Amino acid sequence: MLKGSAVIGQSGGPTVVINQSLVGYIEEAVEAEAIDRVLGARHGVQGMMEGDLVDLGGEPADVLEAVAATPAAALGSVRHKVAGDDVARMVETFRAHEIRYFFYVGGNDTAETAHIVEQQAGVQNWEMRCFHIPKTIDNDLRVTDHCPGYGSAARFVAHAFQGDDRDNRSLRGIKLNVCMGRHAGWLTAASTLGRRDDEDGPHLVYLPEKVFDPEAFLADVAEVHDRLGRCVVAVSEGIHDADGRPFLQVYAERSGSALAGEEDSHGNIQLSGTGALGDTLAGLVKEGLGPELRVRADTYGYLQRSFPADVSSVDAAEAREVGRAAVRAAIGDEHASGSIALRRLEGEEYASETFVTPLDTVAKHTKDMPEEFLAGDQGVTPAFRDYAMPLTGGIRPMADLDMAPV
Amino acid sequence: MLKGSAVIGQSGGPTVVINQSLVGYIEEAVEAEAIDRVLGARHGVQGMMEGDLVDLGGEPADVLEAVAATPAAALGSVRHKVAGDDVARMVETFRAHEIRYFFYVGGNDTAETAHIVEQQAGVQNWEMRCFHIPKTIDNDLRVTDHCPGYGSAARFVAHAFQGDDRDNRSLRGIKLNVCMGRHAGWLTAASTLGRRDDEDGPHLVYLPEKVFDPEAFLADVAEVHDRLGRCVVAVSEGIHDADGRPFLQVYAERSGSALAGEEDSHGNIQLSGTGALGDTLAGLVKEGLGPELRVRADTYGYLQRSFPADVSSVDAAEAREVGRAAVRAAIGDEHASGSIALRRLEGEEYASETFVTPLDTVAKHTKDMPEEFLAGDQGVTPAFRDYAMPLTGGIRPMADLDMAPV
Repeated sequence: MLKGSAVIGQSGGPTVVINQSLVGYIEEAVEAEAIDRVLGARHGVQGMMEGDLVDLGGEPADVLEAVAATPAAALGSVRHKVAGDDVARMVETFRAHEIRYFFYVGGNDTAETAHIVEQQAGVQNWEMRCFHIPKTIDNDLRVTDHCPGYGSAARFVAHAFQGDDRDNRSLRGIKLNVCMGRHAGWLTAASTLGRRDDEDGPHLVYLPEKVFDPEAFLADVAEVHDRLGRCVVAVSEGIHDADGRPFLQVYAERSGSALAGEEDSHGNIQLSGTGALGDTLAGLVKEGLGPELRVRADTYGYLQRSFPADVSSVDAAEAREVGRAAVRAAIGDEHASGSIALRRLEGEEYASETFVTPLDTVAKHTKDMPEEFLAGDQGVTPAFRDYAMPLTGGIRPMADLDMAPV
Repeated sequence: MLKGSAVIGQSGGPTVVINQSLVGYIEEAVEAEAIDRVLGARHGVQGMMEGDLVDLGGEPADVLEAVAATPAAALGSVRHKVAGDDVARMVETFRAHEIRYFFYVGGNDTAETAHIVEQQAGVQNWEMRCFHIPKTIDNDLRVTDHCPGYGSAARFVAHAFQGDDRDNRSLRGIKLNVCMGRHAGWLTAASTLGRRDDEDGPHLVYLPEKVFDPEAFLADVAEVHDRLGRCVVAVSEGIHDADGRPFLQVYAERSGSALAGEEDSHGNIQLSGTGALGDTLAGLVKEGLGPELRVRADTYGYLQRSFPADVSSVDAAEAREVGRAAVRAAIGDEHASGSIALRRLEGEEYASETFVTPLDTVAKHTKDMPEEFLAGDQGVTPAFRDYAMPLTGGIRPMADLDMAPV
């Protein structure tokens, strides 16, 4: 039995259930004979490089439960791609604190980091167990059926569109709502989960798995508006042209206007934390279909990953469980490293179980929505609904009056 | 006893509990001896002008409960200022259907409409009872202690800022969130209700009751960022200069740039349904404090008035009760017309009761936040917290780990 301390870090964009996984790790690790001290690193690999560690073994149960229900990384998060030198510094910290168990909560970049740490620790002759605990509202990790964090974000988006559709019935017009998801449409697709029929919005759903054609978009909006006198549209922030270039960038180049928003250090255009895409699309609709139309755009922004008061109970329970499962796998005999994944079980009632998949099967690449969930140029299929609904904990349909005519 | 039919309409921007008031009206009206038929008008005064009425007397109880929990106007809403001709057409409809009881759910413009209807019906010798049922997330009606719709919107905003503050702790930077409220800061002020101490965001709160000074704003943000390494800011969409001109308009004129957003038919700049204000302020912070800062802006938009999954139970109950109280007042002997208001009762536990106030005390003018709730150039006082907290149904503080240093 490999004996030593354990450390956990949290990485990337937060979710509302990321601390469930942290608490699952703590609960299981304090019980594990192989683990001497249950540590955490502030701001992920940054804390591990700098030796900024905290002892999590003495946290009272009521604090743990309250923290589990608190959104965003309780230890602080980080966006940092580790290089060889970084990992060398991390291994120094591991040696200094006798850390033999490394856990890292995050998306595919985080899995890659865990993979690099495992390799470098081996090179430096420091025996370790390295496990990735999945987390992303984008739901774009490979292998796993779905990702902890997605169910709650999907629930928020489904509810948001239900309310917005009712608002749009009350005061009619064209309403565009921009959802997160740069590469994959999972979260935008969740906008449809509260729909009962074709009259319920969103009436149009544009996903990054498809090429976004502004002409077709305008024609689609006009068709729905002619039919219903109103139109609610879900748009992924990642919509792009046939060459994969973001719509906002293409639009700015064509119109000769300054690029709305900023670029990040990788030269990617900023998509989150700005209303630029929604406002640009709203302007396009007014230009194309008439300035007298009432056109509004909202960008759901960080609320999708941080709103604390509408969490999926299924998601919360699974997020807790992947944290526990990572510790069990690490102290078990079967795996020296891996990523925890979820498998959906057969049967009428939704249920899932965890399993371990090699780090390199999850690292680097992401998973788009499959063809079976995509309906033509826009929209989703009933198969997507069957897949996603249980993860949200259930979305109750809105209700209408019978309204007998007088 | 004045016998006849009753009609109700819903007006202006929706709330998540506006249908509670509708259902309260139906429940009380179907029991009232004086009321023959319980009717509703589609899209408020528009339906009354056009005779587009529905019979609400036969709606099953389970439908009513489901509709009460559904956001936005179930009968459809309208933004229309009635003129003399409009009211003449409405009175024709009232005569045709023997309508003697008129109820109108909305804000101060709606109260004014009820007042005009009462006067014109009198001129045309059609005896009627005219009652206004209060509703607005802006909480800006006079006389009443607070407005149905506000508690739920305040709850949403408080929770949104709690989650966003946790997000901002995880990945530090400067985060601006724009809240609704063109003239009054009540909803923006609710951003503070989940705060435990000075480290919790929002750290800065800009309300339309005060003059917005961009220089002071930048200095405030810099001070908080220096102190905490991060900063969360709540901004009302209604921030303006000393002459009352919206910030966005002043900024566009000074910078010579095109006015972001559009103007409405009254020449007011469009504030809702666009991210322009948040994006402009974010740009200002980057210009003023350094382009290397991580600055993001979200605009909470229509979610504040329509998100169905985080309703205040106190607000829902009060919204139901004002609908009931309006019917009781209308069939009683004391008042020929009026607006239903809420009075806060003395005592440890929060409780309220309804009373009737003359229509002209509520019509036209609105109510800003009083001085006792405003703290200097920005922010709110503990007195505001005491006032607003019970209306939300309670906001539970977020939790931190103890994090014993290693």
